[in-house]
Order: sequence, then C-alpha cells, then structure tokens
Amino acid sequence: MLELYDLAGAEPDRRFSPYCWRVRMALAHKGLAVETIPWRFTEKQAIAASGQGRVPVLVDGGRWIADSWAIAEYLDKTYPDRPSLFGGTAGKALSRFHANWADGVMHPAMIPLVLLDIFRQLHEKERAYFRKSREERFGKTLEEIVANRDQRVLSFRESLTPLRLTLKTQPFLAGAAPLYADYAIFGGFQWCRCASDFPLLAADDPVASWRQRMLDLFDGLAGKAKGYPV
Amino acid sequence: MLELYDLAGAEPDRRFSPYCWRVRMALAHKGLAVETIPWRFTEKQAIAASGQGRVPVLVDGGRWIADSWAIAEYLDKTYPDRPSLFGGTAGKALSRFHANWADGVMHPAMIPLVLLDIFRQLHEKERAYFRKSREERFGKTLEEIVANRDQRVLSFRESLTPLRLTLKTQPFLAGAAPLYADYAIFGGFQWCRCASDFPLLAADDPVASWRQRMLDLFDGLAGKAKGYPV
Repeated sequence: MLELYDLAGAEPDRRFSPYCWRVRMALAHKGLAVETIPWRFTEKQAIAASGQGRVPVLVDGGRWIADSWAIAEYLDKTYPDRPSLFGGTAGKALSRFHANWADGVMHPAMIPLVLLDIFRQLHEKERAYFRKSREERFGKTLEEIVANRDQRVLSFRESLTPLRLTLKTQPFLAGAAPLYADYAIFGGFQWCRCASDFPLLAADDPVASWRQRMLDLFDGLAGKAKGYPV
Repeated sequence: MLELYDLAGAEPDRRFSPYCWRVRMALAHKGLAVETIPWRFTEKQAIAASGQGRVPVLVDGGRWIADSWAIAEYLDKTYPDRPSLFGGTAGKALSRFHANWADGVMHPAMIPLVLLDIFRQLHEKERAYFRKSREERFGKTLEEIVANRDQRVLSFRESLTPLRLTLKTQPFLAGAAPLYADYAIFGGFQWCRCASDFPLLAADDPVASWRQRMLDLFDGLAGKAKGYPV
C-alpha cells in the first residue's frame, strides 16, 4: 500500500495543500490506492527519511519520494502499465509550463485572497509560526493581506485568461480527458476550496465548469473531500 | 509550392506579425518550402478568398487557410509523414495553453513596450489608420503608451515567470527539441525583434538563451530575418 504524507488542518481530514492534491489526483488517475497520513508543518521528523521537510511525500515500499512533480514522474516510471500522467514525452515536457504557471502566477494570486482563511484552519500548535512567517514575508498582518478581496478577486479572475481561453475550446487542459497538467492547476483551486468559502470564480466562468468536472472525477474524490461548496 | 500572406512593414522584407512567425517556424519544422507574400493591413482584397481579413493566410494548391492554430492543425493533418508539430494528441491539447498564454498575457504586455516602434515600421499608407485605431483602444497617444518603458519592462520580465521556470529545466518548452508550443511563444519575441531595438530581456535570462536557440533553428530562419540584434 502506498502512503502519502498530506498537509492537514486542525481537523485531520481537512487537507489543503495544492501540491498534495496534485498527487492525490495523480494517484487516482493511475488507479493506485493510497493511505494518506495527516501531516502538519511542524512535523519535520516524520518525513525526515525523504531528505527534506515539506509535503507531499510518497512512501512506496521502502522508497521515499518528495515533490509533486518528482512523484508524478516516479509514478509514471514505476507503474508504466497504468494510464500515463503526461501523454508521452512531449506531453510531459509541455506540462511543465502548466505546473510552473500555477506555481509562479496562480498560487501567488490566490494567497492574498485566502490566507487568513487558511490560518483559521490550522492546528493551534502552528498558528503562531504561520502568522509570524507570513506577516514577515508580506510586511503586513494577515488581516491586511486579505483586505478588500472582493475587489481584488476581479483581477485574479482576469489573470486566469490563458486557462479560460483554453477551456473554452476543450473540456480539459489535456483535451478530452484530464492529465497531470489539469491536476497541477486544479490543485490550487482545491486548496482554496478546502480552506475557504470565498468565491474565487463567477458561476458562468468556463474555469468554474472545468473545476466542477475535476471535482467529479474518480467518483468525486476531490468534491467529497472536506471543504466548502463552490 | 505553398504561399503565405505575411504581414510586412514599409520595407517588404520586414515581417513582424507574431502569428505569421508561428507559421513560418511551423512550416520550417515540417520541412515545407513556402513563398511568403508581403501583405499590409489594408490589403483585405488579396486574402478575401480566406473568408476573413487577417494574416497569416496559407494557400496550399486551391485551399486557403487562415489563423495560425488552424494552419498548424492543417499542416499536421495534411502532411502526417513529416515531423509532428504537437507531439501527439495530448501534446496538441496541452499546446493550446502555451498559445493562449502568449495571446492573452504576453502579447498584451509587449504591446505597450514596442507599439511606437511598430508604428514607425509601417508603410505610409497605413500609419494614420494604425495610429487612430490604437490610440482609441488605449485612450492615449502612441507616445504616451510607450512612455516610461525602461521601468515597465521590469514588470514585463517578471510576467515571464512560467516561461523562465520551465526553461531553467529544459532547453525547449517541448523538451529536448522544439514543437509548436515553442513557436507559439517565440512568435511574440520575433515580432518585437523585427520591429524594435528595445531590449526586452536581460542578457542572463534563461528566456534570452532560449530565444537565441529559436533564432538559430532551421539555419537561422528567424535570426537572419530583417530585425534588430537582441
């Protein structure tokens, strides 16, 4: 049985790491069962065997693999008879751009909308650390970071243009069916949905329709996870 | 012999449409020779057989095909024995995101840096139309649109983050060798290089190294085209 260390809130079944969600979806795509282990920022010791201090960390027999992209690569290499996550060599290289757009553009735009909500989901033992580190990074309080988000969400939605244009012409980023590129971007939306009831998307946005398709995949794996309605 | 209607400036050999460059590169990728026909915004009649009024327009025997993406699809379908532009079904669907990111994010960020330079390259007969339509769209003069670009280019460079992150780990967006996704994004850089001497990129940017690799492809097809040093 595969095991995945998965970021959790105060409630052990509230899971809201975008990178862990990439892996959850990737495992389901490959039809691999996994036992998820709730993990919190301060529990570095539990994943020390991975050689670093962040999740997702996958344990497959004696092998420890960290980093969502590295895990996806590992899964495709180790379980080649199951559905590919990338759709070939070119597909894999092309998917990097989707993952990097999520990391470098979409996540930084999401954070100032939902950071205070994420804070409120955290286990008591890590709230002080979280508040201090984030407030130092932004140079303002968590409350100030999310201030005026009803206005700012409009420019967030605007920043999704490449995603929206693509989903106007095809149901998934990978075409008729999803691949890792879809999971890489969906992770961010699921992160927000699990931690926050703030409405990120307008209901008539093609991105919202795609998000719903993603929530419904694999018998509603993501949609049934503890979170808020979208 | 294939023919391509290709946007030209006052000098017929100065070609600076990002969409036409996508097609030039795609044709070279497939090893297809093409005769390019210099075309200017006002020459709608020449391409009327394509059913619309913009370039690129490819003529292959009696068939007229407009729109860079549609042309790339046409080439892969019509010439399946030559190198694929997309690297498979998934690769094709995934490449849409790269093209849409160029259209929806990168080009709009480039325009306010180089628009006045583009204007200066135009044939006399279309300068008045171009100035009027662009000034109406932006609500300011061409000179005002490009004002302070030495400062603004810094945020343009910042906006290339997903491109830069990807090119730090692989030489082309499609991996070890370029595909249409590379041409879709390169078109914008070549557009700027052919029309403007404004330095878009810092010399040590991985994006600049990739641009140079793109300029060198196909015996320097893009690099030898009339433009400015980068």
